[in-house]
Amino acid sequence: MSVNQREIGRRTLFAEIRRHGRIPRINLAELTGISRATVTTITAELLREGLIEEVMSESSDKGRGRPKVDLKVRGAARLIAGGKISNRSVSLVLLDFEGTQLAGHEVELDQTAHESGELAALLAGHVGELAEKIDRSLADVAGFGLGIAGIVDAPRGFVHWSPSLTARNVEFGKILTATLGIPVFLDNDANLVAMAEKSFGLGQGHSDFIVVTIESGVGMGVVINDEIYRGTRGCGAEFGHTKVQLEGALCRCGQRGCLEAYVADYALLREAMSASGGQDSRQVEELLAAAKGGDAVAGSIVERAGRMFAMGLANLVNIFDPELIILAGEQMQASHLYAEEVIEVMRKLIVQVDKAPPEVVVHKWGNQMWARGAAAYALDNVSELALQEMKDHVA
Amino acid sequence: MSVNQREIGRRTLFAEIRRHGRIPRINLAELTGISRATVTTITAELLREGLIEEVMSESSDKGRGRPKVDLKVRGAARLIAGGKISNRSVSLVLLDFEGTQLAGHEVELDQTAHESGELAALLAGHVGELAEKIDRSLADVAGFGLGIAGIVDAPRGFVHWSPSLTARNVEFGKILTATLGIPVFLDNDANLVAMAEKSFGLGQGHSDFIVVTIESGVGMGVVINDEIYRGTRGCGAEFGHTKVQLEGALCRCGQRGCLEAYVADYALLREAMSASGGQDSRQVEELLAAAKGGDAVAGSIVERAGRMFAMGLANLVNIFDPELIILAGEQMQASHLYAEEVIEVMRKLIVQVDKAPPEVVVHKWGNQMWARGAAAYALDNVSELALQEMKDHVA
Repeated sequence: MSVNQREIGRRTLFAEIRRHGRIPRINLAELTGISRATVTTITAELLREGLIEEVMSESSDKGRGRPKVDLKVRGAARLIAGGKISNRSVSLVLLDFEGTQLAGHEVELDQTAHESGELAALLAGHVGELAEKIDRSLADVAGFGLGIAGIVDAPRGFVHWSPSLTARNVEFGKILTATLGIPVFLDNDANLVAMAEKSFGLGQGHSDFIVVTIESGVGMGVVINDEIYRGTRGCGAEFGHTKVQLEGALCRCGQRGCLEAYVADYALLREAMSASGGQDSRQVEELLAAAKGGDAVAGSIVERAGRMFAMGLANLVNIFDPELIILAGEQMQASHLYAEEVIEVMRKLIVQVDKAPPEVVVHKWGNQMWARGAAAYALDNVSELALQEMKDHVA
Repeated sequence: MSVNQREIGRRTLFAEIRRHGRIPRINLAELTGISRATVTTITAELLREGLIEEVMSESSDKGRGRPKVDLKVRGAARLIAGGKISNRSVSLVLLDFEGTQLAGHEVELDQTAHESGELAALLAGHVGELAEKIDRSLADVAGFGLGIAGIVDAPRGFVHWSPSLTARNVEFGKILTATLGIPVFLDNDANLVAMAEKSFGLGQGHSDFIVVTIESGVGMGVVINDEIYRGTRGCGAEFGHTKVQLEGALCRCGQRGCLEAYVADYALLREAMSASGGQDSRQVEELLAAAKGGDAVAGSIVERAGRMFAMGLANLVNIFDPELIILAGEQMQASHLYAEEVIEVMRKLIVQVDKAPPEVVVHKWGNQMWARGAAAYALDNVSELALQEMKDHVA
């Protein structure tokens, strides 16, 4: 067996064991097409490394014959952290190697945009504190996944732009890895929500779906063939800056006609201000309440945002034809965009065929879930690293 | 070795041999992680079935030692046909199992939309005639790939709608298979152009790219991770019907604001007619020539089409972040959409990062190339069938 064959086999078998939770050794050969002898060799290595463990099979307590054992990932093998940076807070979680949550906390931030070194130091402190909650330290964490808003080239850990950083074009992944002293895996936050939906949310069992997130901006995560689709330059899935109107409303990004320039909080407030000749000092919540209460101007503003959002969603459906769209977010104030009327407009704007339109579900959840998505991303990467380290041992 | 293991191994090895053109047996084990013994067993089976053959290695004519042999796909193993239905013509090609073109021809059609049974009979006749050109018959063809405009659910061979068929919701794949008496593989024509670009065009060596086609409508084929992306209901990649203007111009599909309603031939002529109070009887070619010649009204019509096309392309870039966009088509009259000015507008409308925008290339080619894409699709499917038949032999 060549080094390459052994490496492919190890990766295949470990992924299969993780996917099944627990599985008899004998089933692995059948499922993967790897010979029984090789399965035995490789699982022995994985057991020796402590990455997997044997447990009594649930089907073997029949009182006769040799007790059967299943293989499963060993939870204690690695400690994984995940985090999500929001506008004024950081959410953090710790998972074991099986993905079970061990601890979590929420930290307030005193500003939105940070100098990258300061933010890295701050995160190092908070991840360390979280580890101490379960009597471990930052150095015990095998990997930290972090979600951040903006345009992120995930494989390089490079941030083209983020509202959480004061500078553009930052090698933030490298800065984090150097500051925390552990491997850090950085991605766009909406991608990690998609990861979370896929791993333990409404995307379980779906191979192709889209997650749209609404916070202060509009984000998107796309899952194709069970994988996050990231584009080739780290700036795909920029749903918020697709154009819904040629030479339309000015967007914060400096361009015109972006979806965000019609549906984001600031866009609604700008409209209200403009309608009142600069006299409107309402917050978004008040504006939405007024629209619901029958205020004609507020109604017109909110309604247009909904129509533009529906048009953007319809374009995604026409392009991706997903089986499922998950509208995910924690802000209750985006409910006007998640409204059934908006989804109905979307259904009218998609290509009409004699087949049901994609299912649209609304999933409201807290920041801890975003952080768990980030941890799931780290878990994948740490697993890969663990298998590579093994390769070095053996070679 | 279980049936499943053998099947996976067979598929993996055959794909690897096809990908390399010619490859020494010994390299297959290293590349695939399959043991040398299994490689020997499976390649012996493939040789016995006549799907592959041994040829003298190009590196072995050094006059000493045992002559080395390479494995390659056996061209004579299967005969493959491909076709593309255009507005008023059908293009057809015949390939051997290696993908080498053996014959091709072009047939005029006397109308655009056909009854499905009649069109199937007509195609059966023309594929048969083509086979006779090389002294074979329709029954010798192992599979026929066909590209058709419209909304096609490829895995089911189901046509939701096509300008080439008089009826909607047609099981056209089944009708074709029954009429021709050979397996037929149907897909949207733009997907097959993407397949052609991937297999032997400008997409070679690219894993992620987008092909946009302009004929009477606007089509799109998306390649993600080396595969055509088809969506889940057979109606993805409907670029022509993404909305570029909420409640905008009326489209032939019955909806408003579709990209096609601004850039298709009929859209330009409608504008010219409307500007002249119904007096303008120019054809598209004349309108484009007038715009080039400085005619202000024609210029304004053509320019808006270009801006809308640029906006649609920019949205694709913001969503997919591809490394390459291929603008493919045979119609010279779409050159105003392929113009450098239009691409420049697109570059301004995409999310701005400190990285080069995706490469945009224009690839003008004839219908024979579309037909070759269809044949490439059939080649993939026939290979899969051939391997499945082997499984039945052995089991």
